[in-house]
Amino acid sequence: MTVRVGVIGAGMIGQDHIRRLTEVVTGATVTAVADVDTGRAAEVAARAGATALPSGADLVASPDVDAVLVTSWGPAHAEHVLNAIAAGKPVFCEKPLATTAEDCLRIVEAERAHGRRLVQVGFMRRFDAGYRQMKEVLSTGSLGAPLIVHCAHRNPTVPESYHSAMAAQDTAVHEIDVLRWLLDDEIVSAQVVTPRATSRRFAHLKDPQIMIFETASGVRIDLEVFVNCQYGYDIQCEVVGEDGLVRLPDPAAVGIRTAARHGTVVLQDWKDRFADAFDTEFREWVASVAAGTEPTGPSSWDGYAATVITDAAVRSLEAGGETVTTDMKPRPAFYGDTA
Amino acid sequence: MTVRVGVIGAGMIGQDHIRRLTEVVTGATVTAVADVDTGRAAEVAARAGATALPSGADLVASPDVDAVLVTSWGPAHAEHVLNAIAAGKPVFCEKPLATTAEDCLRIVEAERAHGRRLVQVGFMRRFDAGYRQMKEVLSTGSLGAPLIVHCAHRNPTVPESYHSAMAAQDTAVHEIDVLRWLLDDEIVSAQVVTPRATSRRFAHLKDPQIMIFETASGVRIDLEVFVNCQYGYDIQCEVVGEDGLVRLPDPAAVGIRTAARHGTVVLQDWKDRFADAFDTEFREWVASVAAGTEPTGPSSWDGYAATVITDAAVRSLEAGGETVTTDMKPRPAFYGDTA
Amino acid sequence: MTVRVGVIGAGMIGQDHIRRLTEVVTGATVTAVADVDTGRAAEVAARAGATALPSGADLVASPDVDAVLVTSWGPAHAEHVLNAIAAGKPVFCEKPLATTAEDCLRIVEAERAHGRRLVQVGFMRRFDAGYRQMKEVLSTGSLGAPLIVHCAHRNPTVPESYHSAMAAQDTAVHEIDVLRWLLDDEIVSAQVVTPRATSRRFAHLKDPQIMIFETASGVRIDLEVFVNCQYGYDIQCEVVGEDGLVRLPDPAAVGIRTAARHGTVVLQDWKDRFADAFDTEFREWVASVAAGTEPTGPSSWDGYAATVITDAAVRSLEAGGETVTTDMKPRPAFYGDTA
Amino acid sequence: MTVRVGVIGAGMIGQDHIRRLTEVVTGATVTAVADVDTGRAAEVAARAGATALPSGADLVASPDVDAVLVTSWGPAHAEHVLNAIAAGKPVFCEKPLATTAEDCLRIVEAERAHGRRLVQVGFMRRFDAGYRQMKEVLSTGSLGAPLIVHCAHRNPTVPESYHSAMAAQDTAVHEIDVLRWLLDDEIVSAQVVTPRATSRRFAHLKDPQIMIFETASGVRIDLEVFVNCQYGYDIQCEVVGEDGLVRLPDPAAVGIRTAARHGTVVLQDWKDRFADAFDTEFREWVASVAAGTEPTGPSSWDGYAATVITDAAVRSLEAGGETVTTDMKPRPAFYGDTA
Repeated sequence: MTVRVGVIGAGMIGQDHIRRLTEVVTGATVTAVADVDTGRAAEVAARAGATALPSGADLVASPDVDAVLVTSWGPAHAEHVLNAIAAGKPVFCEKPLATTAEDCLRIVEAERAHGRRLVQVGFMRRFDAGYRQMKEVLSTGSLGAPLIVHCAHRNPTVPESYHSAMAAQDTAVHEIDVLRWLLDDEIVSAQVVTPRATSRRFAHLKDPQIMIFETASGVRIDLEVFVNCQYGYDIQCEVVGEDGLVRLPDPAAVGIRTAARHGTVVLQDWKDRFADAFDTEFREWVASVAAGTEPTGPSSWDGYAATVITDAAVRSLEAGGETVTTDMKPRPAFYGDTA
Repeated sequence: MTVRVGVIGAGMIGQDHIRRLTEVVTGATVTAVADVDTGRAAEVAARAGATALPSGADLVASPDVDAVLVTSWGPAHAEHVLNAIAAGKPVFCEKPLATTAEDCLRIVEAERAHGRRLVQVGFMRRFDAGYRQMKEVLSTGSLGAPLIVHCAHRNPTVPESYHSAMAAQDTAVHEIDVLRWLLDDEIVSAQVVTPRATSRRFAHLKDPQIMIFETASGVRIDLEVFVNCQYGYDIQCEVVGEDGLVRLPDPAAVGIRTAARHGTVVLQDWKDRFADAFDTEFREWVASVAAGTEPTGPSSWDGYAATVITDAAVRSLEAGGETVTTDMKPRPAFYGDTA
Repeated sequence: MTVRVGVIGAGMIGQDHIRRLTEVVTGATVTAVADVDTGRAAEVAARAGATALPSGADLVASPDVDAVLVTSWGPAHAEHVLNAIAAGKPVFCEKPLATTAEDCLRIVEAERAHGRRLVQVGFMRRFDAGYRQMKEVLSTGSLGAPLIVHCAHRNPTVPESYHSAMAAQDTAVHEIDVLRWLLDDEIVSAQVVTPRATSRRFAHLKDPQIMIFETASGVRIDLEVFVNCQYGYDIQCEVVGEDGLVRLPDPAAVGIRTAARHGTVVLQDWKDRFADAFDTEFREWVASVAAGTEPTGPSSWDGYAATVITDAAVRSLEAGGETVTTDMKPRPAFYGDTA
Repeated sequence: MTVRVGVIGAGMIGQDHIRRLTEVVTGATVTAVADVDTGRAAEVAARAGATALPSGADLVASPDVDAVLVTSWGPAHAEHVLNAIAAGKPVFCEKPLATTAEDCLRIVEAERAHGRRLVQVGFMRRFDAGYRQMKEVLSTGSLGAPLIVHCAHRNPTVPESYHSAMAAQDTAVHEIDVLRWLLDDEIVSAQVVTPRATSRRFAHLKDPQIMIFETASGVRIDLEVFVNCQYGYDIQCEVVGEDGLVRLPDPAAVGIRTAARHGTVVLQDWKDRFADAFDTEFREWVASVAAGTEPTGPSSWDGYAATVITDAAVRSLEAGGETVTTDMKPRPAFYGDTA
């Protein structure tokens, strides 16, 4: 059975996922496209051999759509996801699940009322081969209990529109999700301290930032977010356990010796860094939809948790670096025991 | 358009490629399966939702088959490929193209008579991301002209059926193909010297072997073939140019520090090492068939060249290590200027 | 001219430095040894061909002693150093310079009164080739201004006598000194947070600890101190600047591939890790004494600063992790502009 | 007891060793200097606080000289070493021991006649920490018997005076010595093949060269000698055994990430690469002289063997790459069982 996917949001990320669903991943076809810019919807739909529909609601309701992919702008996510749940259709929603914790909770409640999981949130790192190797190593117990995690998330530059709260909301949110999953643990507090700012930034931006998270079991995470590091897109993650540590590998790259230097090229673009993870993410999602099983990726609860934790980080930043406890509801049994 | 592929040879490698064509690569479907073991053909075809056909010839002739994949045992390759050329159908043939240089030449001649390229040979390394990065670096000219290549091809163990000539025919043949492509150069002689043999081998086998190749432009290649190295499947390749060198990366793997050691796990299985290369190989082949263009992968001339060069290596081994000049015909313009 | 060194404190570290001064470093000879255990002093002196003297004061006063090396237990350091200053003799004092900030200040004042620098404190990392390479790279300005430093200081195990405050006083103190020098910047606050403790420790000990320091220019330093990490002695340091980063290398070690693993051995003993640094430290100290110039290594001001900063870290630990501002006096011009 | 060393040959290498003996290594003093350029001898002697003597013979005979260091030009080595043996004085001779195998044998015979070892030859790699780690690993047997060694010896450039035979005589000779020691095995044949030459060389020079050696036990060594590689001084060595491999580390160097590159600097000068090895070499030699024991470094037999093997390599080069068997005498029991 081929899964017929309807895509709400025909911007750059939507188009990239349409290419992925049609050219890379087997078992899916894109049958419908909607966008607030109906001209763009028509154009993208035509290229994909799909039908342009006038609205997200129409798309969710279409009998030619088995599953919904939401890649519209963030403030509209909640509405589309709630529509899909109401229609009983699987829905893949790019991050964030919703822009407020309240909206995330509404989705969680709607899904629970529906009675089975329909929602997957687009945190792709759980599908990266390196993080999966880390989880595999940690799960053997050979390194003992995790105690500390050191992370860095570096981008070469960001545009002027990127503001200080986005360091948590748009950037650190990937670490927040993947570490909850990697550690099988919940984050309970956040502290954000601001080193001397780089001169290579727009003046309004606090960059870099260091975020310190604590988990329920006491693991401490330090995360450097540095979005104007100039030299490349660079993701580092090291989990220190009682008996040893495991470290995320750099992407495999040819070694070059020339002009008195030995080394490799550093990637510049996050899309190159996580290209395989995106492919795997959609391959597994399509497979779960085709099989009629619940999705195995990040749940709406994970989307809610990420929002609550980034909120705490933003509050700490605004409060000048004090430690802020997250304001998270108790986890419903519906979403399993752990992160 | 979905490419309908018929598969001749339903053994392990055939089944793996069927999985790849149906589950991993978009744009293809397997419609027919043939095997000398008709029971196995029936079983594999059933699982794939394809039709079992009584013979390779029937499969090539079937109107439900747009393109042919040959994964039968080596001695039958030539016949199936020649049938496909006669039928004017694209054919992907697992290595070797044929077991003798004469049979390879018959295929080359048939394809030239047909007037356009139909044949791709299954050397997958040209599709490996690491080798492609190496080629990209070399093609910029920043390292100057290539002068020397150092390679190692190591397997943890081989079964008793593996004999000394297979070091060239089955193992080194991958380096022979990928280096002709990487250097854009032809191999003109081979010398095989035999170090002290490992005690971890079957007694009849000369293992390890060191092969030294020379190219038309004078590049020297040394290649260690060691198929009982015990510790893992390990592929090394370093091209030394006038101004620097470039080296194939090891697969990305998590770094682990525990028990007084710092390091990574070494892969054991060549199928894991080149899994992505196989996927890319078939993705690009299916795309070329769907587009009706000539295949971009290794040609029947490349298949012929590989056989001629491995023959020279085997002759050197049998002659006790003297340098043997390859006995290669002039390259027809039909196959382009270079390797 | 051969420098005649008198050694106060004939314990393990004293004996090791005597070996260094007599067997490794040229230009020095050990002429006198004193120890509160006069039997041990006699024995060590005899082996070194030196004279045992009844007390540190006698040793400082001896006409056969050009320069004094203090390797007694910490609480006695201040007295011996003050004696040496009073005698106008160069003195090398193992860390700590003194056990309280007050005593350090008394030494600073005595030295200033004397009018030229006589004291060097035994922080050996400034003499490590890796840190020196880092400083050289940073001083070129090619990485821009430093913004963040990530460090880890891991020991395999510690004895039961090691208590929580020693994480700052004995362990982190090395990073505190070397980072002040590396960054040419002063540390102005400290925060110590305690992750979940490892089960591989004595129950009274908080291990690991994460220390966060801020410098006068706003650089943030995060330092993991983990003294029961089990796997080895491991020192990590990475300075992130505006345009790139520089990282301390692991010690050069042979790469081994065997038994499905690729890697290197991790050192177990800090004395192996910094053996060359100790040699260089004494080589340069002896050269400065022989030349009659001021010592170039860590000054008594550096010893004072290290004590003040570790005090702040201990107060933060005791206060449950709040940020504590250091209580440092203004830097006298006598000690130059910067750290 | 301080060893009084007389130095014959006051050129660059002689001066560097004088510095080492006086400033780095304890237990030695330079008391006499001789040079064919008596003006230079006088000047260097004055700087070292030594006496200039009119000739090497005078220096060997001087009662102020306990041990002789020969750093004159190669053709004079044999005479000075034979003089030292005749005088019964320990002598350290820079490589080569002599410029012909015959002269080496004369030294060997003279030393045997004397009855105990007096001669050490200046092959410094046996004192390099990396090679010593390799030997330690190999000696445990954990990697099984050695089968293959891959080496590279690269210099950034060489002057016009460097000719093709020097690739063996001056460059490969270091690998020849260190591998005989590392493997505890003798080299019995040599083959030199010449890849396409780099355009970055003087026209008379064959560069690079690949040398293939075979040992008595059947180990095969391939060695790339490339003395105009442009990018740096780079020494590689990997020993492949039955159960795994061990590889010489690159020198520890800070990792730098900047300008889209991740890597380290490559050393340019062999003196930097082996500075520590030179220090250790002289430290151990001086200690053996002081103790009155036989030297533990490369013997005159090792000097003879190196000359015989480089002769074979040169003959192979001149003969167009055929395999040449070394013409080595049987090893006298006087020099122990093995290399």
